[in-house]
Amino acid sequence: MFKTTIEPRFSETDALGHINHTVFPIWFNFARKDLFKLVHPSLSLDDWPITIGHFDIDIFHQARYDSEVTINTGITKVGTKSFTVVHEAWQQGAMVARGEAVLVWFNYKEQASCEIPENIRALLAEH
Amino acid sequence: MFKTTIEPRFSETDALGHINHTVFPIWFNFARKDLFKLVHPSLSLDDWPITIGHFDIDIFHQARYDSEVTINTGITKVGTKSFTVVHEAWQQGAMVARGEAVLVWFNYKEQASCEIPENIRALLAEH
Amino acid sequence: MFKTTIEPRFSETDALGHINHTVFPIWFNFARKDLFKLVHPSLSLDDWPITIGHFDIDIFHQARYDSEVTINTGITKVGTKSFTVVHEAWQQGAMVARGEAVLVWFNYKEQASCEIPENIRALLAEH
Amino acid sequence: MFKTTIEPRFSETDALGHINHTVFPIWFNFARKDLFKLVHPSLSLDDWPITIGHFDIDIFHQARYDSEVTINTGITKVGTKSFTVVHEAWQQGAMVARGEAVLVWFNYKEQASCEIPENIRALLAEH
Repeated sequence: MFKTTIEPRFSETDALGHINHTVFPIWFNFARKDLFKLVHPSLSLDDWPITIGHFDIDIFHQARYDSEVTINTGITKVGTKSFTVVHEAWQQGAMVARGEAVLVWFNYKEQASCEIPENIRALLAEH
Repeated sequence: MFKTTIEPRFSETDALGHINHTVFPIWFNFARKDLFKLVHPSLSLDDWPITIGHFDIDIFHQARYDSEVTINTGITKVGTKSFTVVHEAWQQGAMVARGEAVLVWFNYKEQASCEIPENIRALLAEH
Repeated sequence: MFKTTIEPRFSETDALGHINHTVFPIWFNFARKDLFKLVHPSLSLDDWPITIGHFDIDIFHQARYDSEVTINTGITKVGTKSFTVVHEAWQQGAMVARGEAVLVWFNYKEQASCEIPENIRALLAEH
Repeated sequence: MFKTTIEPRFSETDALGHINHTVFPIWFNFARKDLFKLVHPSLSLDDWPITIGHFDIDIFHQARYDSEVTINTGITKVGTKSFTVVHEAWQQGAMVARGEAVLVWFNYKEQASCEIPENIRALLAEH
């Protein structure tokens, strides 16, 4: 499991006084950074190996500007060409949102999905 | 059905050369503006009546910077306290993404969901 | 002069009920799209010829969510390697913000600024 | 002086492979959070005392996704109704951008700027 701490930004609030819902996909993608480092240690953009095929988010409570958010990230499924990540965002003792993302192993030069290499699958399976 | 045309912004691209996936929830929320005007014509933020409980997005193709995106928005379900909206984003003849959102009728002063008024339910049902 | 109309997005408001100030650079960059088309008609990202060296923004009034914003964009100075663009954002009859940007002709492959070609300088000078 | 460390987000890159310039105002506003806590310890949005009147940013180098950015923030001028903040963003030993912001003491209920209280002026002057 990966743990990410986020200090909300003022620009992430909206006129209803809470964090705008469109911010959660940004936070969750950011929370995948340690995972990206694991499977693509260089973080090089030239041979970036992943795209996203699906994501969904449930919002349980309004998130606020004035306290930290902790995001717990785990891998729930490792398939042949894709894997599934789940994120839970906690603030002040409550789970404010939960999201899943399906990440696809992808060759940008050939513009096609491809099989996840065995060693990467093994790394993912460990989490 | 509501139709929204979006001209992608340079700041919405990412280092992979396409529109970053976190932009779709922003576009889809923007595509609900006509719907917001329908059920809350003043657009006043003081008595804004809606929050979002869930959204999910499937991405079928990479969206590009250099051509317009059309978003078709429809209402698929009207419940007692919430309703469901579906968005399809089209670019250059292909559906690049499709998303759903569950919108909850919400009283921000009382911080509680509440029943959608009958006249609003009727308006929503028409679409 | 270029004219761009923007319908504010809910996600661009902040907890103070107005449009967050960080949105203006995004709108102003978007308002340069017609200018980009003029000097780089393909909009191709592979040989994008411009970077930004400086921008500043004055905010005179709070911008609101519920009405359109018009941005007038003009070119105020054309130098050897850079040119200056000015933007005025108007909403409900008032200039809410004004910004300048210094755009530098740039070769991303060589990672160096370079002289603006004569024909482009001529195009810019016309505006 | 305040010091803020930022780990760039993938969604902050653009199609040119660097951090999009519109991200700097967001980072710099975030870098003012400790300053906001100093002058408005509750961070309460109901009586938020500040608005922004001007900001400008110089970009010296392209910022990258793959390494941390440190932002040093100082106060350079304290006036009667406003004060000026300067930010320097450093990445891998180089100053990538520098920005200033003029922050105005503001009463949102009366929609008017007002004098900075003496005790706040003293706090600001210390920095």
